[in-house]
Amino acid sequence: MRNDGRQADQLRNVEIITNYTKHPEGSVFITVGDTKVICNASVEDRVPPFMRGQGKGWITAEYAMLPRATEKRNIRESSKGKISGRTMEIQRLIGRALRAVIDLDKIGERTIWVDCDVIQADGGTRTASITGAFVAVVLACSQLIDEEKINEMPINHFLAATSVGIAENGEAILDLYYEEDSTAAVDMNVVMTDENEFVELQGTGEEATFSPNQLNELIQLAQKGINELFDIQKDALGNRANLIGENKGE
Amino acid sequence: MRNDGRQADQLRNVEIITNYTKHPEGSVFITVGDTKVICNASVEDRVPPFMRGQGKGWITAEYAMLPRATEKRNIRESSKGKISGRTMEIQRLIGRALRAVIDLDKIGERTIWVDCDVIQADGGTRTASITGAFVAVVLACSQLIDEEKINEMPINHFLAATSVGIAENGEAILDLYYEEDSTAAVDMNVVMTDENEFVELQGTGEEATFSPNQLNELIQLAQKGINELFDIQKDALGNRANLIGENKGE
Amino acid sequence: MRNDGRQADQLRNVEIITNYTKHPEGSVFITVGDTKVICNASVEDRVPPFMRGQGKGWITAEYAMLPRATEKRNIRESSKGKISGRTMEIQRLIGRALRAVIDLDKIGERTIWVDCDVIQADGGTRTASITGAFVAVVLACSQLIDEEKINEMPINHFLAATSVGIAENGEAILDLYYEEDSTAAVDMNVVMTDENEFVELQGTGEEATFSPNQLNELIQLAQKGINELFDIQKDALGNRANLIGENKGE
Amino acid sequence: MRNDGRQADQLRNVEIITNYTKHPEGSVFITVGDTKVICNASVEDRVPPFMRGQGKGWITAEYAMLPRATEKRNIRESSKGKISGRTMEIQRLIGRALRAVIDLDKIGERTIWVDCDVIQADGGTRTASITGAFVAVVLACSQLIDEEKINEMPINHFLAATSVGIAENGEAILDLYYEEDSTAAVDMNVVMTDENEFVELQGTGEEATFSPNQLNELIQLAQKGINELFDIQKDALGNRANLIGENKGE
Amino acid sequence: MRNDGRQADQLRNVEIITNYTKHPEGSVFITVGDTKVICNASVEDRVPPFMRGQGKGWITAEYAMLPRATEKRNIRESSKGKISGRTMEIQRLIGRALRAVIDLDKIGERTIWVDCDVIQADGGTRTASITGAFVAVVLACSQLIDEEKINEMPINHFLAATSVGIAENGEAILDLYYEEDSTAAVDMNVVMTDENEFVELQGTGEEATFSPNQLNELIQLAQKGINELFDIQKDALGNRANLIGENKGE
Amino acid sequence: MRNDGRQADQLRNVEIITNYTKHPEGSVFITVGDTKVICNASVEDRVPPFMRGQGKGWITAEYAMLPRATEKRNIRESSKGKISGRTMEIQRLIGRALRAVIDLDKIGERTIWVDCDVIQADGGTRTASITGAFVAVVLACSQLIDEEKINEMPINHFLAATSVGIAENGEAILDLYYEEDSTAAVDMNVVMTDENEFVELQGTGEEATFSPNQLNELIQLAQKGINELFDIQKDALGNRANLIGENKGE
Repeated sequence: MRNDGRQADQLRNVEIITNYTKHPEGSVFITVGDTKVICNASVEDRVPPFMRGQGKGWITAEYAMLPRATEKRNIRESSKGKISGRTMEIQRLIGRALRAVIDLDKIGERTIWVDCDVIQADGGTRTASITGAFVAVVLACSQLIDEEKINEMPINHFLAATSVGIAENGEAILDLYYEEDSTAAVDMNVVMTDENEFVELQGTGEEATFSPNQLNELIQLAQKGINELFDIQKDALGNRANLIGENKGE
Repeated sequence: MRNDGRQADQLRNVEIITNYTKHPEGSVFITVGDTKVICNASVEDRVPPFMRGQGKGWITAEYAMLPRATEKRNIRESSKGKISGRTMEIQRLIGRALRAVIDLDKIGERTIWVDCDVIQADGGTRTASITGAFVAVVLACSQLIDEEKINEMPINHFLAATSVGIAENGEAILDLYYEEDSTAAVDMNVVMTDENEFVELQGTGEEATFSPNQLNELIQLAQKGINELFDIQKDALGNRANLIGENKGE
Repeated sequence: MRNDGRQADQLRNVEIITNYTKHPEGSVFITVGDTKVICNASVEDRVPPFMRGQGKGWITAEYAMLPRATEKRNIRESSKGKISGRTMEIQRLIGRALRAVIDLDKIGERTIWVDCDVIQADGGTRTASITGAFVAVVLACSQLIDEEKINEMPINHFLAATSVGIAENGEAILDLYYEEDSTAAVDMNVVMTDENEFVELQGTGEEATFSPNQLNELIQLAQKGINELFDIQKDALGNRANLIGENKGE
Repeated sequence: MRNDGRQADQLRNVEIITNYTKHPEGSVFITVGDTKVICNASVEDRVPPFMRGQGKGWITAEYAMLPRATEKRNIRESSKGKISGRTMEIQRLIGRALRAVIDLDKIGERTIWVDCDVIQADGGTRTASITGAFVAVVLACSQLIDEEKINEMPINHFLAATSVGIAENGEAILDLYYEEDSTAAVDMNVVMTDENEFVELQGTGEEATFSPNQLNELIQLAQKGINELFDIQKDALGNRANLIGENKGE
Repeated sequence: MRNDGRQADQLRNVEIITNYTKHPEGSVFITVGDTKVICNASVEDRVPPFMRGQGKGWITAEYAMLPRATEKRNIRESSKGKISGRTMEIQRLIGRALRAVIDLDKIGERTIWVDCDVIQADGGTRTASITGAFVAVVLACSQLIDEEKINEMPINHFLAATSVGIAENGEAILDLYYEEDSTAAVDMNVVMTDENEFVELQGTGEEATFSPNQLNELIQLAQKGINELFDIQKDALGNRANLIGENKGE
Repeated sequence: MRNDGRQADQLRNVEIITNYTKHPEGSVFITVGDTKVICNASVEDRVPPFMRGQGKGWITAEYAMLPRATEKRNIRESSKGKISGRTMEIQRLIGRALRAVIDLDKIGERTIWVDCDVIQADGGTRTASITGAFVAVVLACSQLIDEEKINEMPINHFLAATSVGIAENGEAILDLYYEEDSTAAVDMNVVMTDENEFVELQGTGEEATFSPNQLNELIQLAQKGINELFDIQKDALGNRANLIGENKGE
């Protein structure tokens, strides 16, 4: 039994609200335990200079936390005048993960900007961002279809992410909240598709190491959790969930 | 009758949710029509170097918008590496306004950081920020009292703000939403206390000018609106509202 | 009687030297008491990207102080690598004020850069900048007419600015010098046209507030002072003053 | 057989030169195929502010490439005025990896700065940096022992890194050079200790995904390669290699 | 005869106004032909961290041009957010030159900030800055003596600077104005003391070269010009000129 | 006899390795005593915007030191986010010196980027950079000829540089190493062509001055040293040395 009452292989309570704000093409509010993230997908009708003229699109992500999303207030990155290494790593991860499941040839010369803004943080903000961002991107693509700007859903697989880790007591656990995260010996973020393939795997021994056996244990936990996340994403998307993978193999 | 159905002297629907997120000492979610702002007040147990050793506190504000709070996505200021002139003006205004009603001698050597983050923008984000930030600061001070860190509420007056303007058709109107704001000939932000005194008055002819008579008309509209905002702040604060002004004259 | 011997409604000694340096299209040295500002207007034969192809012009302002314009040396903003919020606010104000009286359609696709550099500061640098910058812009436009690049003066009204305030002793005073400015309870900058219309009004209670009656008193003082500034501008401009407003109503 | 004639499980030729430049406490030149990196470890007799007074040390890493280390010249990051996300990710990875095997309590209040400067790049620069940096840190610690500043080697395990990946043709391969790296479907960096435990595992599907089976295959390749790297590190270190792990379990 | 009517070995008209603005400890306005520079020396009662506790002072210089000091407007360095290489070179030169003649042990733990701001540029701004800055520093030191903060003039030699060059037609000329400067084959800045010793010599072939004989010719021209500048500095300083060198040999 | 055993007029041991790394068009490793610099020349098939359409090329230089090239580690300029004044001065000097001997009309609309990266510093890094960079540029131009992109060697003269100075004991010495450099009264960098003409001469009294006689003595030392450097450059270039000056007078 964990400090918050969960089993080792139990996700926190997850909720996904769609159409959270009115301006973005896709807007999602995702809650994972006490972690809360707004994931907005914005469509711009052009691509960055290095991609022009190729007839295909681009997707990129940005990540930030409100200064007081955390227990102690952080200095705003715009005030510091630069983005931290942690932020860069996270936003590059989110972008890379989404690019693994979207077929950029099918969205034309458009850029999808994904903004993940953490309103409240309690561990797992990057994996919650990926899970929520995926839904926001599907919503944005649905709108492009509704507006007849594109012909079909450019996404062939569901994509979600969670964290797993080795707790202080040596136990492998799923979906770490902040207290667990800050004391864990090993921390691993896993991004997977609904074919149970890995998109990204980042395991770090925090001044510690882990064995191949522990790696296997962690991966099985992650698979279990991510499959549950797919169900929650499907519920949130309703009918639009059926469009995903419909055109696979074309 | 205005495009959104309001009378010239009518505020939009205003809602103030307290204790919106769990970490800040004071956390508020304010809705003014479709404008939505999170106002968090964070207490830090030290003051900036230029104020050390004087036994008094400091209060400062920061303001930002989510990139897609607006109809068109804005580049994130942390990505640009610098804060725009508009942002600077607004956060200086919020800080100055709050300093007019808080007695910094009564909070000890502490800094109150006020973060106003616009989740959705539809005009009037700076005045909504001031109105919400005031409530967040009262909540933070209440917590300092509850924790017996300070003895009494350091705030003697209610503080709220609204915008008024001369519409395209020449009519003076209260609480402009984005469409009105972007076409108005004159735009004025007014910050007042519950003694009907001005804290800040900023009127700008947008490639236009205004007469002393029009100025008077605008000021009366603002007074009406701000008095209604005080009632909403009082409702949100409940019993804690009674602490304000209690120690006036000491 | 004020500390420097002036009446409450008396301006400091104001002097405007035209053609102060040789390179700019319009160059002015303005003295307001001990405040001294060089106001240069430079014409560039193109507009910023966001205005290209519209056949109209643009005017923008920059403001700076020499590091030792003030009693204590300030760090140079180029050394700090960023512009302060105060500087941003002031240069946005100067630009906005000038745009209220210049008809940008009449100057073609040109940019007028207005540089206000404070050589010596003793309060009221932003209002002195506006009053001097107006003259520099008229000079620059006159030269465009002389060179037959434009057909007529694109300016229909005189524009000047001053500060008013409530002194420590509660008295409303005109044109505050530094000592008064730093102790005033209320500080207001007023920009007006020669039709006695407001272009900009910025009143701030410095940890204080002001009543509607005080507002009226301040505005009357400002009107008196600004009307005197118009006479000084006219003297400085000589015959060129007659061109202003000549084409009004076209 | 790969394009450069290697077997799928074959490392490139690796060479480690110690004491490469004269100033650093530990200086290494590592060659992995055509990838060449200078790894310097510098000891500073103080720690960053957030660690002062704890009696323990700190280790941090920086990474850069000469502008023409690559086939096409890159703009120097000092000229751009900021560090790219890629550089940040890499230098955070190097620092984290080293912290997993060094006992910071044993080096006193000192900082070890590790600088990895890529002279020539042909794929695998981050893993070559880790492998070389480890040796540089051992050299620096040896010097601290020789100078009697510390009592014993603060390092208990060898640490090395390599890359593995799924080539375009679906084959799992060890130690990718640039051409392979840029076409691989999956790219994984693995950092391990000589107890065959993982320190860091970063696998990325480049617009692709990988299965649990492929993961296992990749990990076995990595283990093989890294064990060969340990032998090369031991040769380079000579007698000093024996100090590693000597005080394990204390 | 040169284009502006001067002989090859003739300086432009030079004027030095002392006490130009009221705040600085030493304030000078220097005119060299159409080049006009404000040189302010500010005294701060502390030294930078790297010099603390040594009982001696520091002197440093900053240089800037008003945006429209030149024929074409330059972007303000504070707006660009960084200082150009040219500015850095010049301010380092001014500081180094002044440090050659001031005895920093005699000013106590104080910093003298020298600000050279070019109001109008017509060639030779860096040498005019040095010549004017020297006078400003003497004025500031005189004030320190008058205020009994220091005992004696810490300056033992006069210091002045000029430019010499090889004109397009091959002739060696003194004190180049902008037109000459921009077409010269060789440009040399010379800083000397009144003992006819060099402090700094910077000769540059502008896509050209120069022979040892030409070097000798240029140096003789510079000596002639600088000796004339010393007389102008002495006139400007009046009695205070006698303090210089008075304590030499102590 | 100097501390390192050299005569006053003796260069340190100089070695030039060509084709040091594989990617650049010209790559050189130059050793001058314990000073070691990688000089890479990269050819880009376009020129900066301000030079487009003129049919001629551009050459520019960048200079940096590895953080631990020096006895004490320096903070990386990319981490500080800006380039120091010293670095700017040096890279401007290198670029200017090279432009004096290359005929930019003969390289077409190409840019040659010269990167001088100091691996180990022991005084004279800027002059070693110029001497090595010259060779790298000749190699890059040779490759352009070999690839038939240009018709002839665009370089008419050899170019090399050294430092001279007045030692603490008053003696004029050639090619100062770090210990001498940091204690010298006068330091002069001299860049010359093989016609014994000066390209650049920068002499600085380090809180000291020097006489015209000392200047002559220093120049003769520099000429001797630079003539020896030309021989070493010729050896390094082999047959390609004959191309230099071949087309002089065209």
